[in-house]
Amino acid sequence: MSANSFGNIFKLTSFGESHGIALGGIIDGCPAGLKLDFDKINIDLKRRKPGQSEIVTQRKEDDEVEFLSGIFKGVTTGTPIGFIIKNSNQKSKDYDHIKNIFRPSHADFTYQNKYGIRDYRGGGRSSARETVIRVVAGSIAKQLIGDITINAYTSAVGDVILNKTYAELNLNITNQNSIRCPDKETAELMIAKIKEIKKSGDTIGGIITCVIKNVPVGLGEPVFNKLHAELGKAMLSINAVKGFEYGSGFSGTHLKGSEHNDIFSSDNSTITNYSGGIQGGISNGMDIYFNVAFKPVATIMQKQKTIDGNNKEIIMKGKGRHDPCVLPRAVPIVESMAALVIADYLLLSRLNKL
Amino acid sequence: MSANSFGNIFKLTSFGESHGIALGGIIDGCPAGLKLDFDKINIDLKRRKPGQSEIVTQRKEDDEVEFLSGIFKGVTTGTPIGFIIKNSNQKSKDYDHIKNIFRPSHADFTYQNKYGIRDYRGGGRSSARETVIRVVAGSIAKQLIGDITINAYTSAVGDVILNKTYAELNLNITNQNSIRCPDKETAELMIAKIKEIKKSGDTIGGIITCVIKNVPVGLGEPVFNKLHAELGKAMLSINAVKGFEYGSGFSGTHLKGSEHNDIFSSDNSTITNYSGGIQGGISNGMDIYFNVAFKPVATIMQKQKTIDGNNKEIIMKGKGRHDPCVLPRAVPIVESMAALVIADYLLLSRLNKL
Amino acid sequence: MSANSFGNIFKLTSFGESHGIALGGIIDGCPAGLKLDFDKINIDLKRRKPGQSEIVTQRKEDDEVEFLSGIFKGVTTGTPIGFIIKNSNQKSKDYDHIKNIFRPSHADFTYQNKYGIRDYRGGGRSSARETVIRVVAGSIAKQLIGDITINAYTSAVGDVILNKTYAELNLNITNQNSIRCPDKETAELMIAKIKEIKKSGDTIGGIITCVIKNVPVGLGEPVFNKLHAELGKAMLSINAVKGFEYGSGFSGTHLKGSEHNDIFSSDNSTITNYSGGIQGGISNGMDIYFNVAFKPVATIMQKQKTIDGNNKEIIMKGKGRHDPCVLPRAVPIVESMAALVIADYLLLSRLNKL
Amino acid sequence: MSANSFGNIFKLTSFGESHGIALGGIIDGCPAGLKLDFDKINIDLKRRKPGQSEIVTQRKEDDEVEFLSGIFKGVTTGTPIGFIIKNSNQKSKDYDHIKNIFRPSHADFTYQNKYGIRDYRGGGRSSARETVIRVVAGSIAKQLIGDITINAYTSAVGDVILNKTYAELNLNITNQNSIRCPDKETAELMIAKIKEIKKSGDTIGGIITCVIKNVPVGLGEPVFNKLHAELGKAMLSINAVKGFEYGSGFSGTHLKGSEHNDIFSSDNSTITNYSGGIQGGISNGMDIYFNVAFKPVATIMQKQKTIDGNNKEIIMKGKGRHDPCVLPRAVPIVESMAALVIADYLLLSRLNKL
Repeated sequence: MSANSFGNIFKLTSFGESHGIALGGIIDGCPAGLKLDFDKINIDLKRRKPGQSEIVTQRKEDDEVEFLSGIFKGVTTGTPIGFIIKNSNQKSKDYDHIKNIFRPSHADFTYQNKYGIRDYRGGGRSSARETVIRVVAGSIAKQLIGDITINAYTSAVGDVILNKTYAELNLNITNQNSIRCPDKETAELMIAKIKEIKKSGDTIGGIITCVIKNVPVGLGEPVFNKLHAELGKAMLSINAVKGFEYGSGFSGTHLKGSEHNDIFSSDNSTITNYSGGIQGGISNGMDIYFNVAFKPVATIMQKQKTIDGNNKEIIMKGKGRHDPCVLPRAVPIVESMAALVIADYLLLSRLNKL
Repeated sequence: MSANSFGNIFKLTSFGESHGIALGGIIDGCPAGLKLDFDKINIDLKRRKPGQSEIVTQRKEDDEVEFLSGIFKGVTTGTPIGFIIKNSNQKSKDYDHIKNIFRPSHADFTYQNKYGIRDYRGGGRSSARETVIRVVAGSIAKQLIGDITINAYTSAVGDVILNKTYAELNLNITNQNSIRCPDKETAELMIAKIKEIKKSGDTIGGIITCVIKNVPVGLGEPVFNKLHAELGKAMLSINAVKGFEYGSGFSGTHLKGSEHNDIFSSDNSTITNYSGGIQGGISNGMDIYFNVAFKPVATIMQKQKTIDGNNKEIIMKGKGRHDPCVLPRAVPIVESMAALVIADYLLLSRLNKL
Repeated sequence: MSANSFGNIFKLTSFGESHGIALGGIIDGCPAGLKLDFDKINIDLKRRKPGQSEIVTQRKEDDEVEFLSGIFKGVTTGTPIGFIIKNSNQKSKDYDHIKNIFRPSHADFTYQNKYGIRDYRGGGRSSARETVIRVVAGSIAKQLIGDITINAYTSAVGDVILNKTYAELNLNITNQNSIRCPDKETAELMIAKIKEIKKSGDTIGGIITCVIKNVPVGLGEPVFNKLHAELGKAMLSINAVKGFEYGSGFSGTHLKGSEHNDIFSSDNSTITNYSGGIQGGISNGMDIYFNVAFKPVATIMQKQKTIDGNNKEIIMKGKGRHDPCVLPRAVPIVESMAALVIADYLLLSRLNKL
Repeated sequence: MSANSFGNIFKLTSFGESHGIALGGIIDGCPAGLKLDFDKINIDLKRRKPGQSEIVTQRKEDDEVEFLSGIFKGVTTGTPIGFIIKNSNQKSKDYDHIKNIFRPSHADFTYQNKYGIRDYRGGGRSSARETVIRVVAGSIAKQLIGDITINAYTSAVGDVILNKTYAELNLNITNQNSIRCPDKETAELMIAKIKEIKKSGDTIGGIITCVIKNVPVGLGEPVFNKLHAELGKAMLSINAVKGFEYGSGFSGTHLKGSEHNDIFSSDNSTITNYSGGIQGGISNGMDIYFNVAFKPVATIMQKQKTIDGNNKEIIMKGKGRHDPCVLPRAVPIVESMAALVIADYLLLSRLNKL
């Protein structure tokens, strides 16, 4: 029931399986008159693309987006923007060995039971391959939101934790290393960690932090569609995400009100920002920042016990080319989902007053 | 834009300000034929009610719900269930002193700027008073979902942390103490902590854990409406919530795939449950469990600097009767929002297959 | 599934049965800052009210609306507007005789079969009593749309047909007679017709015409939410409506393209207006006009054969106080539904362009 | 704002312009487990296709649908079904002459003003070409609804009117003539009429009647989403439609209640069926039937006065290959939209009761 649509006004509807003919999407509700920069979309796609460095999967996918409608002479027309990305690398046979197997901590078992049928090739619809569609839409959303900037980066890989707040970092250098951590030294430790993990056929989780600046006051739709509630849902809808916190987050539970309250300056800004740029579900003009927790990838290159469709126990081992850590490729996905929310709520905010 | 509605099929729409005439709601989409137990609704309302113990606000509100439609001879008819709760304790004058003041870490500033007008009495729509409506609807949702049980409890108050997993606890005793922690010893420490905080005119945050048992396999609507994404949104929409994590959550980011993967038993259950009962966004039949982080209440009984509507700095001090810690009253709210999600997704799951 | 909500942005959700405690509604999405004129709402309610003349039902209902939220000092705040109307005239016993009877051409049979239970008193939810809620919301919508005027009138009662186009009529005099026909002579014939029908214990159908003026260019959301498609749905959702046509309507099917095309003048207006003010689903600035067909009321004061819940044939006769013709009371309902659509699409049109 | 989506559960979202690269759609909410018959889809596409007879446009379009997702081994998987239809016949230059012209009774003027930009080639998004996507989705919907049959046919072309009710006709022979009228004699008169109209460079309107049989009791979602209200909206969303009536429709306004009421038989059927198979917005098991009015096509092969983008009056004449009458090609479109509604409401009806 519209479970493949995201957004209220700026709305993405997506389709596609990892080993089908193509994935695609429709953006309905993009205002007319936006001149698109297609290079920017391609840059975001490349940041998500497999094979971009030695710490991600070595699969080859072209990830070339074809726009089919809604754009005339490079400008959006207000009609739905349809687009597809063909699956160039469909080695369906690679997946015959999992046809009757429920892989541990994958969605094989739940999809099979929910629908009574599943496209088992590469996880089908449950594959993170679908996030490529989110990046196309998110990249367009970024172009819509003007001066608002969205920057995500890797802030933890397993136990390797970046011990600096975003304010202490130069977010312009995030993409200069393969793990997308804007602190060179920590980045090297993270990369070393992933290489070590990969060598043992294992995988590792981590945290992505995202910062949104220049947000106008007034985005957010209480009481149920508070800005952070929608951001939370957006992030939690990304494959492998297990947690979301914004502003002071879980650590704020240790504070007293007298410590946690953000005192106003006379220019309407606040001296501290434990609120994370959102009060009562509505942006207050300060920076929005949040953390997203990713579990380790479920596909490992080690032997594991599991069951098949007949509940028989078997031993399986991952095959193919997989990510030892999703973090570097997830950075643009987090940004994209944030951009979808901000674009949508920016449009919604046109409706607040007479 | 429907920002006061929650749910896809079982849908609550709510209205009401803390100091208006009444709050109310409409539940649209409740199936016909449900015999309602009104006592159960009242029990949940009492668990949320002010004045229930000395560690919560001493305000007096009757919180008596009047059902106006959708129920005939005690049974739901499939038509919308309208209900109201009158505000019996409207001391509007109590709030004249904040008429032109933006209280720190409240929604005064953001509401005023978003809408150009606000009902400043007691926070108006931004007050947590609106959650009373969620409890009515959630309590009906609980009755709809049959054998599925939802139990929330306080697992941390500031630095007082309950160091037991839910499996080690007897969740039937949660309501036997005023903080609603199912571990007597920890409960006492928490209560002592809150009393101490209250005495200093301050407030404190904490964590609520929620456990959902007997969930059938198949609830959840990928790719955007994954079960945990909707649960996350539901929780993040509650006043004062700053974070949500399910299953292994943030701590799972430290694990390796070989540690984190939940190996299947031959009965389709899993030996571990880092997944938190959800795989690929769909329930797998194991227990669902999650944590919700609450910041400390913003209203404190201490002097604070802030600004008024003319950006002039002033000193203010909280008045009236406020909660030093929202946790005990938030327990039924967390359960209610979880029940709304589960009821809704249970109905949605009727649509999966031919 | 949200079947009791109408609108995208300016959204009414309604509840209530004809003989329950109260009916009510929530308007979510009304922009903040609208100063309400409550007298205007009461005037519209009076136009719909039973007992207003001798050609309508003589039931007595106060139809006094109580606003419970969303309005502060007479101005909308952007938060949901909750309101109720109590049922003052609940003679439930009047309906014991139809408890087990399916009245011909009523919704008794279909409700019973769809839901397995029904509130049989006065038709319950299927009663046109629910339209009182539409009038409250529609009256607020009228205040929101500024200079746009919406005028409906009775253009046919059975075979008594008003043979003038709206342009030949003075729509300001519509409410000067009890049938609400802006042509005095025809009005008298219509009233005579209804009195005659009433005397025989029968009922009669008719047509309401509605004209919307001063609509800006650009309202309407193709391809599925064309302005006339939404107007059509709005009208068809009113009890007893069997047909909708706009502009040239059914008679336009006889014309050739060369006759039907509306040629532009150099001021962007068109010389003819067969299009009815809408081209390609979007308003073009010309008057919007449409006809709505109402069937005769099903409750007649004559003996009729029908069946009971056990499929046994019985003879029944209508009791109580019913309308011999719904047209005069339906005029404000048609206007209200039109106003809901126009207000909603006016807000939507804020989202078209960058 | 989702204006290119139709349906609640079984939901089609469409994109595409008449002269863009491709049109396409996503069906979200089709239950898993439906074995698709692709030949049936192609038959419906052929019935809509240009060039199929001498009374329709002689444009050549392949209208070959490519399914990209949501189907595995010929069976639906419950995931979104993405599909595209390439525009094989894009002679964009054909439209250079209308680049700056607002054609009378087209959507050129309204699109330009609403969005500030338009794809003028062949009407862009406002072209009836988009209905090809509805036919694909509708044809799948037909396969979902099992025994329920949907048959539309041409019942009037200008003044040539089929004077038989559907019960007097053999609906199996509808497609045996090019106008799709199931009465051979009337069909010939209609075809002759169209040929005559075509010769004069003109166009003509008409009426399509649609009959739905074997509908179970209980489809329809009052109060706003009554079954006929949704059918009405579905039909009115089709290009060139000016009116909709069901059951007794406009002619029912002449009847008295005693004549119009449908008396029950002891098997729950009704002796007459003025209700058109729907009472109180819910299907009652009797045949549903309705009429849809189509205006004459706006593009004529005659000289017409109009204005250009600078409000300058000019003389224009239609070029290219256009339909003198849309009726024959609209028959499968009407059926498709009806099928979308019925499939959607059939799924919704799973949610009525406990």
